[in-house]
Amino acid sequence: MTVATNGVHKSKPSALPLVQKLSKDHDLVLKTFRLLIADLCQQFSGGHPGGAIGMAAIGVSLWKYVMRYAPHTPDFFNRDRFVLSNGHTCLFQYSFLHLTGYKAMTFDQLKSYHSDRVDALCPGHPEIEHEGIEVTTGPLGQGIANAVGLAMATKNLAATYNRPGYDVVDNHTWCMIGDACLQEGVGLEAISLAGHLRLNNLTVIYDNNQITCDGSVDLTNTEDVNAKMRASGWDVIDVEDGCFDIEGIVRALERGRAAQDKPTFINVRTVIGLDSHVAGTAVAHGAAFGTKSVADMKTLYGFNPEEHFVIGETVRQFFQNLPARGEQWVQEWNQLVADYTAQYPELGAEFQARVKGELPANWEQYIPKSFPEKPTATRASSGLVFNPIAKECKNFMVGTADLSPSVNMIWPGKVDFQHPDLMTTCGINGNYSGRYIHYGVREHAMCAISNGMAAYARNTIIPITSSFFMFYLYAAPAVRMGALQHLQVIHAATHDSIGMGEDGPTHQPIELAALYRAMPNLLYIRPGDSEETAGAWIAAIGAKKTSSIISTSRQTLPQLSQTRRDGVAHGAYVLSEDESATVTLLGVGAELSFALEVADKLKAERGITARVVSFPCQRLFEQQSLEYKRDTLRRHRGIPAVVIEPYAPNGWERYADAGICIKRFGHSLPGKAAYKFFGYDIDTLTSKVAGYLDQLKGDELLRNEFVEL
Amino acid sequence: MTVATNGVHKSKPSALPLVQKLSKDHDLVLKTFRLLIADLCQQFSGGHPGGAIGMAAIGVSLWKYVMRYAPHTPDFFNRDRFVLSNGHTCLFQYSFLHLTGYKAMTFDQLKSYHSDRVDALCPGHPEIEHEGIEVTTGPLGQGIANAVGLAMATKNLAATYNRPGYDVVDNHTWCMIGDACLQEGVGLEAISLAGHLRLNNLTVIYDNNQITCDGSVDLTNTEDVNAKMRASGWDVIDVEDGCFDIEGIVRALERGRAAQDKPTFINVRTVIGLDSHVAGTAVAHGAAFGTKSVADMKTLYGFNPEEHFVIGETVRQFFQNLPARGEQWVQEWNQLVADYTAQYPELGAEFQARVKGELPANWEQYIPKSFPEKPTATRASSGLVFNPIAKECKNFMVGTADLSPSVNMIWPGKVDFQHPDLMTTCGINGNYSGRYIHYGVREHAMCAISNGMAAYARNTIIPITSSFFMFYLYAAPAVRMGALQHLQVIHAATHDSIGMGEDGPTHQPIELAALYRAMPNLLYIRPGDSEETAGAWIAAIGAKKTSSIISTSRQTLPQLSQTRRDGVAHGAYVLSEDESATVTLLGVGAELSFALEVADKLKAERGITARVVSFPCQRLFEQQSLEYKRDTLRRHRGIPAVVIEPYAPNGWERYADAGICIKRFGHSLPGKAAYKFFGYDIDTLTSKVAGYLDQLKGDELLRNEFVEL
Repeated sequence: MTVATNGVHKSKPSALPLVQKLSKDHDLVLKTFRLLIADLCQQFSGGHPGGAIGMAAIGVSLWKYVMRYAPHTPDFFNRDRFVLSNGHTCLFQYSFLHLTGYKAMTFDQLKSYHSDRVDALCPGHPEIEHEGIEVTTGPLGQGIANAVGLAMATKNLAATYNRPGYDVVDNHTWCMIGDACLQEGVGLEAISLAGHLRLNNLTVIYDNNQITCDGSVDLTNTEDVNAKMRASGWDVIDVEDGCFDIEGIVRALERGRAAQDKPTFINVRTVIGLDSHVAGTAVAHGAAFGTKSVADMKTLYGFNPEEHFVIGETVRQFFQNLPARGEQWVQEWNQLVADYTAQYPELGAEFQARVKGELPANWEQYIPKSFPEKPTATRASSGLVFNPIAKECKNFMVGTADLSPSVNMIWPGKVDFQHPDLMTTCGINGNYSGRYIHYGVREHAMCAISNGMAAYARNTIIPITSSFFMFYLYAAPAVRMGALQHLQVIHAATHDSIGMGEDGPTHQPIELAALYRAMPNLLYIRPGDSEETAGAWIAAIGAKKTSSIISTSRQTLPQLSQTRRDGVAHGAYVLSEDESATVTLLGVGAELSFALEVADKLKAERGITARVVSFPCQRLFEQQSLEYKRDTLRRHRGIPAVVIEPYAPNGWERYADAGICIKRFGHSLPGKAAYKFFGYDIDTLTSKVAGYLDQLKGDELLRNEFVEL
Repeated sequence: MTVATNGVHKSKPSALPLVQKLSKDHDLVLKTFRLLIADLCQQFSGGHPGGAIGMAAIGVSLWKYVMRYAPHTPDFFNRDRFVLSNGHTCLFQYSFLHLTGYKAMTFDQLKSYHSDRVDALCPGHPEIEHEGIEVTTGPLGQGIANAVGLAMATKNLAATYNRPGYDVVDNHTWCMIGDACLQEGVGLEAISLAGHLRLNNLTVIYDNNQITCDGSVDLTNTEDVNAKMRASGWDVIDVEDGCFDIEGIVRALERGRAAQDKPTFINVRTVIGLDSHVAGTAVAHGAAFGTKSVADMKTLYGFNPEEHFVIGETVRQFFQNLPARGEQWVQEWNQLVADYTAQYPELGAEFQARVKGELPANWEQYIPKSFPEKPTATRASSGLVFNPIAKECKNFMVGTADLSPSVNMIWPGKVDFQHPDLMTTCGINGNYSGRYIHYGVREHAMCAISNGMAAYARNTIIPITSSFFMFYLYAAPAVRMGALQHLQVIHAATHDSIGMGEDGPTHQPIELAALYRAMPNLLYIRPGDSEETAGAWIAAIGAKKTSSIISTSRQTLPQLSQTRRDGVAHGAYVLSEDESATVTLLGVGAELSFALEVADKLKAERGITARVVSFPCQRLFEQQSLEYKRDTLRRHRGIPAVVIEPYAPNGWERYADAGICIKRFGHSLPGKAAYKFFGYDIDTLTSKVAGYLDQLKGDELLRNEFVEL
């Protein structure tokens, strides 16, 4: 229940003072937990025991004393978020989920770790699909960046919806890290941005056991971590005895929650694999200890070495109150939201729609019905299509990796997402309700942070990222994690193809599309003009459980009369049909108009009739019926298809018999000259298609082979 | 000429004391340089003028006073290396190359910047192929990591070959950066490692103009950069007036060269686009100033606004001595090496072979002629094949991103590459002549640094990196830059395919091979057993201008009697032939044995005769003759080919009619269970192949389509 004070509803949940909370059962709880981990790894002789054992006291502090969550309502909207960025220590989290009463995590399930049970809830790294897991982690450095995104989501929602006395969103984000998150670039990028944004609702807990796979962390890192974190704008707290000092850890965590204007970094010294025979060594990291060592631990702890998976009644009771406490918080919050909605009906309704992950029903109406006929770069088309939506729909948080002038994602009246004090300290205008994010030159963190915002609650926030397409190679591990987690994140990528010109081969994405066309659950869409760009955004916004890349041109493109936004939804569609056609040209994105021009020229100069298919998205096309696919391509009628795209051909062999593609890196030339250099002028393209048709007549075997023209 | 002091040959080149060197012509030189940049961008109304103009005084300090180089012998082995990590300011470097007398960089060539001249030496970012350019930069953060690699190369060569009085390698590495290198993760990883390694032969010069594309750097970065660098183990020097204070800059640079045990970070305050109408703003970054503004600058500087590209005689003379000075250094070094070789004949001969990029002629003999018949993981095979070579051939610098226990790249007696003092400070054993590098959990920097080591001199050092294959997505931008620069870097990637098991979908590389098979100038090789692993290493070591990924299994694989190391060189080759075969099975890497087993089962249980092709590398296969390709695949004879690989099928459509592939993300299960879960058991595979052959009989149209089984 909310606490009424002078008639003002307070959002702070009921809590007991710290001194009363600390228990005498800690020693037994810690021993039980550590033996449980050792047993769970020993069972199938595999897994990562050392870190989880070292972090036991941190876990007790978090789940028993500090974190606000509800085991029986795992999706409680205002719960604290916990991210295990050192995901290989997943048994740490699974075991606490079990002990604190998450219903799905039964004892049987817990024991499925490293088993061959297909429906196990204990995979090798935490997975977002399972109860109590906020994000999938494992690839190191991702989790800490996700945590920054989760904290930003809280900040934005709080600044947007909270009203005096009604803090409907005020959860804290806790993130556990190991050494790797302080070494991986994506982690360092995220740390830097979190300091800049002064995310006081984020606490990172460093499991400082000084051990990595290769041995002592001194092998590779001898920097002053605390000084570095302070220089990055973080508050730093040391905990010396992280294996046992629950009171000290709790005090540090509470200081993290109460932080004023900085994120908090708690440097906790622990011992990996404590009390095992490999304690404090790299061997404790990624292998079971062996039956003898586990038995020795039990003897040392006064447990029966013959018994396994022992969780005594005292320990069960220690965690027993947590589901009820959680339900109390849930009820208090439900009441708070009800009161808030009564007080602010419109805002309350909007907030509740956001909680459910709903977009305003009319979002599609903001897209222009038609576009100017003048040549337009599709990066500009993206702005024409999307900015009106972004302006009206608060779900969208739009960011860029320092390419605002290039990506055209600024809507009239946009406000930056910034700490409001930045105005006084350095004249930067913005606040936490702002929805335009300057990520800096940090593509990887941009996308990993966006995953975190998207994971805060399904579709409550739909993050948009933007950069040059080539730089999505920097961000690829995070783009992948978004797709893998079924998060709706939309990446607005400009400067695709060699048409981007002068920046040269380092910026010309020859092979990158092959990655994204192969990546599961990701739509890679190359629209050919403004109309198709509208189709691309409609597809991406409609894909609630899928990430998308909308890949646009730097250079202006002609507006084509034949394109259709609903055609994009099919992945490929016929632009220009002719029953007598002897060849199909597949046109894509920035080069779509080339296909149409080549068709005209083939007809006019050589009497060859070509049909033209626009092919913006392979994955959407794959989802169509076999009949639709055959009707679109007509290869089953013996009509050869030729794709025109200045990318590596890999993957087009499925749809085309020949390709005018590129298998080398690009060349630094102005866009038009680059096209010419690689033979993408209409004369050369036309000759190549005609030449191929001649070649086919002479060598029927070629029909079995993909031919590069 | 070397200077004899007490009979000891000193390597330090002749130099005048600083006070005598500083000139009164600086003002004119700086003005001329700045106008030249403005004109070069105005000419084609494009490019990046602002940074180059702001950095003018830094350039004068470097090229006139501090750097050791030889314009007429650009490849002088012991030259200082200069890396322009903020590569978009390339005109800065091009202009100094022209002014200091590099022969290729004629005035005409300089003026080709942003032209459509195909053979221009002034691409949009510096490119390694051109005289005076050490590495190709552009994608931000790469250059600073390359610089760390260049400095490490010097350290290793110096520690290996220098003898008292004979410092045959003692060059310094200078790296210019902008804000982005302090924001990009790969830069931060490299900075951290450079501090740890105490690379006192590396100086990074920060063009601190406080401006990025989006505007003030305060939009995204408000950290204490100097404090962060100090915490990372760097010496920090501030230069307040970086636009004019050449003396101050020179003093800072000289301090960098004389550094004792830390790399040096010089924080130079500059003004972007100084004296243009957009000075100090983001607009100065990436666009020409406009004719009026350029004319105004000229008027302000007392130049004729009607004249363009003016380099007066005084300025020409200012730089005139540099080629001769360079040749003197070259001669001194040549003499030093001659004396050294006389004194140490064996070492001298070895050093000179290294300078030429030669491997010991007998390197291939270290590879075992045969391998144990017991099942072996190909990651272990990699060790069996390569570690004997690494032990004997000093060219190889072998590193790992904290996965030493997994990658098996440690040879007997290997010594770590570390600062020798680490032994006393934290008990870490190693020295700079060591060739095993602990990179920490920094995959991206590992590969970017390796590019730098490889770029030091062609094949003098051949860097090996190692990690899980999936983490080469983190490193992909650097792997790409290696391939793009034709650098020989070999990436030993283990845990490929779902067979790696429990680590789950975040670690199972479903789509990653599609990227690397599409990436130009990169060999992605999946060997199927030890014999093929030998073939993979032979191919990679033989590819002097190409990067390679050798992709190996975590799990043990049977040793196959049919495999041949020389077969790998062809990309694909027939393992099991049968003239009566009605289907070809394409087997790959860890699943190669599946193809053989399926063929046996098809024959035994269904009377279907299958031939089997091993297909470890698509790119090597592409390089074969059409005849070889047809004979290997036999699709031209109407025999359908089925590929078996638990990866996304993208790209296999070129070689196969059907595929047993995976189009979703993986699943966390033990390796064998994961194979079973996805249908990669012999029974299921056999049924699928047989079913496909049946299906083909019923629907001839399927021959035109790639079928997923």
